[in-house]
Amino acid sequence: MKRIAVDMDEVMADALAEFLRRYKRDFDEQVSEEELEGRRLWEAVRTDRHDVLEEYVRSEDFFAVLDVMPDAQRVMHALHDKYEVYIATAAMEVPTSFGAKFKWLGEHFPFIPPSHIVFCGDKSIISADYLIDDNPRQLHRFGGEGILYTAHHNVNVQGFRRVNNWLDVEKMFLGNAD
Amino acid sequence: MKRIAVDMDEVMADALAEFLRRYKRDFDEQVSEEELEGRRLWEAVRTDRHDVLEEYVRSEDFFAVLDVMPDAQRVMHALHDKYEVYIATAAMEVPTSFGAKFKWLGEHFPFIPPSHIVFCGDKSIISADYLIDDNPRQLHRFGGEGILYTAHHNVNVQGFRRVNNWLDVEKMFLGNAD
Repeated sequence: MKRIAVDMDEVMADALAEFLRRYKRDFDEQVSEEELEGRRLWEAVRTDRHDVLEEYVRSEDFFAVLDVMPDAQRVMHALHDKYEVYIATAAMEVPTSFGAKFKWLGEHFPFIPPSHIVFCGDKSIISADYLIDDNPRQLHRFGGEGILYTAHHNVNVQGFRRVNNWLDVEKMFLGNAD
Repeated sequence: MKRIAVDMDEVMADALAEFLRRYKRDFDEQVSEEELEGRRLWEAVRTDRHDVLEEYVRSEDFFAVLDVMPDAQRVMHALHDKYEVYIATAAMEVPTSFGAKFKWLGEHFPFIPPSHIVFCGDKSIISADYLIDDNPRQLHRFGGEGILYTAHHNVNVQGFRRVNNWLDVEKMFLGNAD
């Protein structure tokens, strides 16, 4: 059985939406799609507001309240029947996120056993056939085939098979027709 | 550069000693070496006391106060110069341990970057050349070469290269003479 590792933030969980919600609340300003295209949020936001972005990420509840990406639950469940599915999230970058991330997975993806959850840093440590991730740096270091999940910051990145959403994941791995 | 993944409990950290300390405190009884030989602690202790053992593991401070195994810091530091060293701990079995384990590593092994720390369940997910672990089940599932670190429960296990302590690890990987 082939193994697929799946990233959490910006793939399973809509972290960006929560950032933008809090940013709007605190500064009464929107960050536009044009400002985000091809750039990380940190690059699109004034540097004197970076501390506030850091505070969002480090707050205990940030990762607990994220929306699930559309179709992620249904497609993950279907993948789980045909592949070994692991979650691989770079949680070590934000140690305050451990508890919230674990709880979020249990709530939204209860069919994934805890033994298939990995909190790591560098994803070159992940042994799997595929890694679905929005971060090209992680995909480059991964030893299997990296699948780039589209996010605002990676729209110009080349060199990987790309999925734009979970329906694309479904098509790629389960061969479902449109 | 070859990569070595290292387990925490019973390899870097003396979890057994802390179990036995608490057991002695609560029941005023020792668990003898004979009782532990070739068995897990859970098998050596009366079943009506298993709940208490579970409580120890799930208490917030358990993994924070563990002693470092003799020579582990010095040898890990030397390994770190010649190998890619990762920590791989089955923390998903005890989600309350995340914070304490991360802090313990930062305190006792500050030269290991957080990006090289992995909290996982099933260690078949670890991509490394070697895994040093006391758990034969994890070594069997691991894809590289498993090195069995001696612990009371695994003394009768065959089929792996074995290290009895960190001086053996040093000899095996750094070739230091006696």
